[in-house]
Amino acid sequence: MKALVLFSGGQDSTTCLAQACHDYPNKVTALGFNYGQRHTIELEQAKKITALANVPFEVIDLSYIANLTPNALTHDIPIETQTKALPNTFVPGRNIFFLSTAAVIAKEKNISIIYTGVCETDYSGYPDCRQEFISSLEQTLSLGLDFSISIKTPLMKLSKAETVLLMQSLGKLDWYKESHTCYEGLRPACRKCPACQLRLKGFNDANIPDPIAYA
Amino acid sequence: MKALVLFSGGQDSTTCLAQACHDYPNKVTALGFNYGQRHTIELEQAKKITALANVPFEVIDLSYIANLTPNALTHDIPIETQTKALPNTFVPGRNIFFLSTAAVIAKEKNISIIYTGVCETDYSGYPDCRQEFISSLEQTLSLGLDFSISIKTPLMKLSKAETVLLMQSLGKLDWYKESHTCYEGLRPACRKCPACQLRLKGFNDANIPDPIAYA
Repeated sequence: MKALVLFSGGQDSTTCLAQACHDYPNKVTALGFNYGQRHTIELEQAKKITALANVPFEVIDLSYIANLTPNALTHDIPIETQTKALPNTFVPGRNIFFLSTAAVIAKEKNISIIYTGVCETDYSGYPDCRQEFISSLEQTLSLGLDFSISIKTPLMKLSKAETVLLMQSLGKLDWYKESHTCYEGLRPACRKCPACQLRLKGFNDANIPDPIAYA
Repeated sequence: MKALVLFSGGQDSTTCLAQACHDYPNKVTALGFNYGQRHTIELEQAKKITALANVPFEVIDLSYIANLTPNALTHDIPIETQTKALPNTFVPGRNIFFLSTAAVIAKEKNISIIYTGVCETDYSGYPDCRQEFISSLEQTLSLGLDFSISIKTPLMKLSKAETVLLMQSLGKLDWYKESHTCYEGLRPACRKCPACQLRLKGFNDANIPDPIAYA
């Protein structure tokens, strides 16, 4: 049994990669996406982390997603920091396209198990991070490809602090040093965007220091 | 209420466009896809048909689909003509990507209704043309976009002959003259590929002449 991990180089997907490597040692492949995100620096970090993990890493160009809708992750418009039902960093359909592409590639490689780091606890109002959506997509993909696809979401019910503690228990906290979270694409991280704030709060609540640098 | 029609310029989607224009007069938009298909001539024909129908037509570039898997529709390998469980003209994930992209665009335009000409009667063994898959995807897209998407499949249960008769009843048989079916991308059509053969049998069974030219 092999596993494919959706891998952005962010904190959640780095944790997810560690979990997959624990569950399926030496049987993991990582898949990243260029979707026109402003913070493409995360893909550079992703390469470094997969090298640490000794996992093959492939990046697929899905940049057409950027042009389907206006949003703050793929366009030069200000990221809203206030809490709203649906923030303007929502890229409609992003997880549908990521997971569907992953499923097609997984089938081609005869891999039935896909890991994704989506999380409904801290899900920022993104509807495509909920378990109800993931379960529905799992069925849709299995039907549409005529191939059984199982989508694992080990972080779904975890708070950011619990994610950090999970990574500690997996013994891979050092991978976090290369992980990228900041929506502004900055290293040192901006500390101010919603993603930075969620990350910092998680480490703080877990009482574990965040190894990356902040402005 | 407005409607979005997935439109390839083929016989089925041309019929589907006529049905949508009947159901939602002057409220229809058509959406085509460049997915690296060998028969891109269908998109030229699609433009002519949407001009006849007086419907706006937009083409989205999904050519990355061509590179995800080897298959006979997007690569220069021979199209298998014998009947098998899954012919090599199956482009894995194609309808998932088409309908997901359409749903993102539909939401952006505040359109809840999407028409597609998929058909399980003559479905050539494609798993993503079955109603069970379409119903599952409809739910997945509505959950993932947090927006109600309804996918209409007026041809789902029809034979090719019944599709021709439906077009006759809609009074738009003349649109078929510009429709393109041949998998080999030929006009006059090759007459030999599985798509040409299905088309010819449908017109023959309906006892209506096919207005396009054949080799």
